[in-house]
Amino acid sequence: MTIPQKILTEVDRSLPGIVSSLQTLIRQPSISATGEGIEECAELVRSMLEEAGIKSEILRLGRKAAPLVYGEVKSKSNPNITLLFYNHYDVQPAEPLEMWDEDPFSGVVKGGKVFGRGAADDKGELITRIKAVEAFLRTEGDVPCNIKFVIEGEEEVGSVHVGEYLKRFQEKFACDGIIWEFGYVDTDGIPVVSLGMKGLLYTELSLRESNKDAHSSLAVLIRNPAWRLIEALSTIRDSEGRILVKNWYKEVTPTTEVEMEMIARQPFSERAFKDEFGIDEFVGKKSGTDAKAALATGPTCNIAGFVSGYTGEGVKTVLPGSATAKVDFRLVPEMDPARQAARLRRHLRSSGFGDIKVAIRTSVAAWRTSPSERIVGCVTEAADETYGRSTLSVSSAGTGPMHQFANILGAPCVSVGCTYVYARIHSPNEFARIDLLEKTTKCICGIMEKFGSDYIPVNK
Amino acid sequence: MTIPQKILTEVDRSLPGIVSSLQTLIRQPSISATGEGIEECAELVRSMLEEAGIKSEILRLGRKAAPLVYGEVKSKSNPNITLLFYNHYDVQPAEPLEMWDEDPFSGVVKGGKVFGRGAADDKGELITRIKAVEAFLRTEGDVPCNIKFVIEGEEEVGSVHVGEYLKRFQEKFACDGIIWEFGYVDTDGIPVVSLGMKGLLYTELSLRESNKDAHSSLAVLIRNPAWRLIEALSTIRDSEGRILVKNWYKEVTPTTEVEMEMIARQPFSERAFKDEFGIDEFVGKKSGTDAKAALATGPTCNIAGFVSGYTGEGVKTVLPGSATAKVDFRLVPEMDPARQAARLRRHLRSSGFGDIKVAIRTSVAAWRTSPSERIVGCVTEAADETYGRSTLSVSSAGTGPMHQFANILGAPCVSVGCTYVYARIHSPNEFARIDLLEKTTKCICGIMEKFGSDYIPVNK
Repeated sequence: MTIPQKILTEVDRSLPGIVSSLQTLIRQPSISATGEGIEECAELVRSMLEEAGIKSEILRLGRKAAPLVYGEVKSKSNPNITLLFYNHYDVQPAEPLEMWDEDPFSGVVKGGKVFGRGAADDKGELITRIKAVEAFLRTEGDVPCNIKFVIEGEEEVGSVHVGEYLKRFQEKFACDGIIWEFGYVDTDGIPVVSLGMKGLLYTELSLRESNKDAHSSLAVLIRNPAWRLIEALSTIRDSEGRILVKNWYKEVTPTTEVEMEMIARQPFSERAFKDEFGIDEFVGKKSGTDAKAALATGPTCNIAGFVSGYTGEGVKTVLPGSATAKVDFRLVPEMDPARQAARLRRHLRSSGFGDIKVAIRTSVAAWRTSPSERIVGCVTEAADETYGRSTLSVSSAGTGPMHQFANILGAPCVSVGCTYVYARIHSPNEFARIDLLEKTTKCICGIMEKFGSDYIPVNK
Repeated sequence: MTIPQKILTEVDRSLPGIVSSLQTLIRQPSISATGEGIEECAELVRSMLEEAGIKSEILRLGRKAAPLVYGEVKSKSNPNITLLFYNHYDVQPAEPLEMWDEDPFSGVVKGGKVFGRGAADDKGELITRIKAVEAFLRTEGDVPCNIKFVIEGEEEVGSVHVGEYLKRFQEKFACDGIIWEFGYVDTDGIPVVSLGMKGLLYTELSLRESNKDAHSSLAVLIRNPAWRLIEALSTIRDSEGRILVKNWYKEVTPTTEVEMEMIARQPFSERAFKDEFGIDEFVGKKSGTDAKAALATGPTCNIAGFVSGYTGEGVKTVLPGSATAKVDFRLVPEMDPARQAARLRRHLRSSGFGDIKVAIRTSVAAWRTSPSERIVGCVTEAADETYGRSTLSVSSAGTGPMHQFANILGAPCVSVGCTYVYARIHSPNEFARIDLLEKTTKCICGIMEKFGSDYIPVNK
């Protein structure tokens, strides 16, 4: 079955509204790392849901947790099946500000793109879903299945309270399938329907050697914490990116044949990727299926930040008192974040670096949905119809609390969305492509239609 | 011979003026790393010299070089011998500002100490010399020998133009002995008469891997510049502090017997040093003569700063585009900074890190004055008389352009001064002890007296 023409016409008609709603959302900063604008943005999203005809409310856990925006539309025609949209209204910090061509919170439209922090991740995605539901309500006065929105405000700091929200509101959030908060569209315009997410262990390694910064000439006697942190980090990873912590890969199961076939089939332009980042080769000189497999199934150990001593202009001959590194590890299924953290601590202790403090800032397990789940077919069909073609991915390279949604709500999760693969999410000059906002809104309409419609025969 | 009583009495009388002049100097920021207040401070110093009765002028090389303040007093009684005081009016940046108990440019007096950036390094030292000359002029209307002041404004950024100044004004600066810009007084109140300085090669190592910061999940494919810089740095130095660059130590000559005896005789409280910095042991577990020898004769490789990626609060899952490390190497005599820089570059290239850029920010050779020079006796005698005791040091652990003064002016250099060894120079809450300002002013008077007086018999 195909998406009804009147729905497609309604999405075309509403395109200016899609763009202006996204601009409104971008103009409200909502930086979970600092808390800036979080409350205001939650309220803005709630009112946007209401305006679209979606019954909405703000849920809270306590003072420490960011509010969660919940929305619901009951289907009159098909009340026995529920599709849940998971999104987030928070964004990454906009730094480095000097690298942006425009104010990151201006929502400027240029060359068919809306620019701004969160334009793609995740405000653009959220808008397509709200507008898809609105298109059904405006044209048919009903939705093809029950719809729920769960829109959290802490995704960019590791979704620290989403598990608690899911447990507390397990009945309210009950559903039969979940559309994940984002999805990529590749350089050939092919949407990637992704079935999994990597886990994340985000650590902060720090140490202090002396009680203050000293004159650098004293380096003959006082240990330098930057040197020591460098020595410790050098024991964690080799130059090919392989993690040297004992038993780090112990529970990792080999990629299955089905997964390897999906990976092999997935299109991936190495040239476009390299051009986008201005690089000549990949880590470990990977190419072909190896490069694609790394994105879907490779664990990482990344330095997200390192700071020690004088980092300003010019010369300062200082021996720093302290040094800090933010190190994040992407995990694959069966790697338990807490167990991996314990292994990291044990590794540092046994390597003689017991004086280095390890703080765990974020810890999320990986998840993969089976490609045989019924919702996977609904999504790929809708994507094929809207984009002419789609591709299935074993797992996104990124992280999210998919394992918690899947485990607590007991429903399969599928990623699909409007984010151009080089939309610079988490980087300066992030943008959303207007053509993809439109196509994805239509695609979401198709998913709703199929997810509800396929179900009708069972009750009839 | 001893310092005349009327001179000592005059110094005692002028003590409040010593403190208030130092406060005035501290209150004028003069940060050579940024250029803040440099011109204003040069003018302030020139006017202070004039007020003390010292003929003064501001010398210039061009727009890029900080002005140099020159002062001169001709001796009526003894015009054939000249003592030159080398000092600097610039200071280190005051950062980290939040670690100061008081405004670093307030010159607050508390507990017998004057606090502020430059209180010890080098504004306190400069004041003792101006006031010593003034004491002679006020009491005797003459000085025991010709006096010259060379006060530069770029010492804290590696004295980048002092060599050019010395060459351009070689005749004007002609002298028979040089009192260096600083000298330490140890925890037992014993002044350290130091005969040398280490050299310095201050480098900035940097690299860019991708043209922008990326999402950290892409670490499976994009190289992380922080990791790469860490790998490169790990090849430069071992955990004991030994530099692994090929031929780094090639020209280093063994410490002579005379030097080893001086080192062995020099008092050094390991306990006080460790307490000051809150450390339990020294690099490589050194102790005793080894620790003292390291300070006087040990080359170093120190990380003065390292920065890459997100260094703010909270979590940002970013793969940085670039990384930078400021690495400074202390050198000993016979180590040519340019040759060492070439060796470092060759090392990185041959270790596979040719993509890392090496910028040389400062480059100064080491120098040691022979203990048999006549001026050494004058200084130790004056120090013994004023402080009751003194100690000779082969070399300071720090760096200065002593080799340029010694080579271009052909005169021996000796360090002696008022800086308490834990006066926190280059660090927050830097201070000058008022008791040491007084004693050192007297000691400087004694040096002038002895340097001139010893000479009289030759002409009589």
